[in-house]
Amino acid sequence: MAEEIRPGAVRPGGRTARTKRAVLAATLTELVENGYAGTSLEKIAARAGVAVSTLYRRWGGLDRVILEAGMDVGTGIVTPDTGDFERDLIDFARAVVEVYRNPVAEHWLYAMVVAATRDPSARATFSLLFENRFAEVVVIVRRALERGEVHPDTDPAEVIRLAAAPIYYRMLVTGEPVDDAVAERAARTAALAARAGVLRAD
Amino acid sequence: MAEEIRPGAVRPGGRTARTKRAVLAATLTELVENGYAGTSLEKIAARAGVAVSTLYRRWGGLDRVILEAGMDVGTGIVTPDTGDFERDLIDFARAVVEVYRNPVAEHWLYAMVVAATRDPSARATFSLLFENRFAEVVVIVRRALERGEVHPDTDPAEVIRLAAAPIYYRMLVTGEPVDDAVAERAARTAALAARAGVLRAD
Repeated sequence: MAEEIRPGAVRPGGRTARTKRAVLAATLTELVENGYAGTSLEKIAARAGVAVSTLYRRWGGLDRVILEAGMDVGTGIVTPDTGDFERDLIDFARAVVEVYRNPVAEHWLYAMVVAATRDPSARATFSLLFENRFAEVVVIVRRALERGEVHPDTDPAEVIRLAAAPIYYRMLVTGEPVDDAVAERAARTAALAARAGVLRAD
Repeated sequence: MAEEIRPGAVRPGGRTARTKRAVLAATLTELVENGYAGTSLEKIAARAGVAVSTLYRRWGGLDRVILEAGMDVGTGIVTPDTGDFERDLIDFARAVVEVYRNPVAEHWLYAMVVAATRDPSARATFSLLFENRFAEVVVIVRRALERGEVHPDTDPAEVIRLAAAPIYYRMLVTGEPVDDAVAERAARTAALAARAGVLRAD
């Protein structure tokens, strides 16, 4: 197959950016409506109004498109930098709650969790997504380590996990409501444990 | 329909107990193999080798059978009573991890989580299951409140949620392994927060 040459595919900010937004939005819609198993590059391309070859060229495959769409869901979770460890953690946990107030994000989460219980490639993509997000957010803990605000043996990722876990636990397991108070308790608890040296690496 | 009279249905410990065990085991197998949406009283009855009418008479409906089968999954989680709050919480969290080492329990959990994202009756059954479990396990925290080991405003259920949440978070969200160290960190963190007064009711 001859490679397509499209000026828009290399022009930053213009048609490329619009294509990217359309593709990621179409991917989320497909995942929410049809689930992971019902999503394909062909359907995403049709919904976004782009050629399948464009998706292959830009992302290389379905898993990479789904990963980037998932990262996009979490773009509301910017890494806070208030200068105070506990405040940063609270802001992070609140941002997680805020993200899932959007029903598209909520149903995307459900679609990914469902797929991850069944399909090893979905499991790998979903895990990689959290690894990528953690790689950004752990900066909150690294700064606190530098400032001596937490126990020096603290595992940064474990702090982030603990600040997020109660939110996901309610959404996925008990079905109890999730709000800012839940986020704040989770964050304060994680901060406390990090200071006390409970959250060391294995 | 005339009500069946079966001596075994009222004899404690004998045929009734065997029937119950067979039905709950069949229910778990159905849930694991066919999912919540693919499970019916008819299929459970056929697998357990009992009459559908027996299931109706004893449980009243499918949701009640599924609820009791789910409670049965957690029977390994006896409420610890070591006299020490943190020790009790650690034993509880380790028991949760131990339960899900059994692949049937693990896949039962996945089936219920999947169903709960889609079906309000599954959501209600799954939530009720955790309410029922919590009603037993919160005794750990109530005793600690009586002994003055935790902040007097502590919400007992919130302590249990926090001791369990990181385990479920790893299983369902990040896909990271779950072991005794994970359970212990979660329990120590929840204990610390309960003592510090972070886990108050809303």
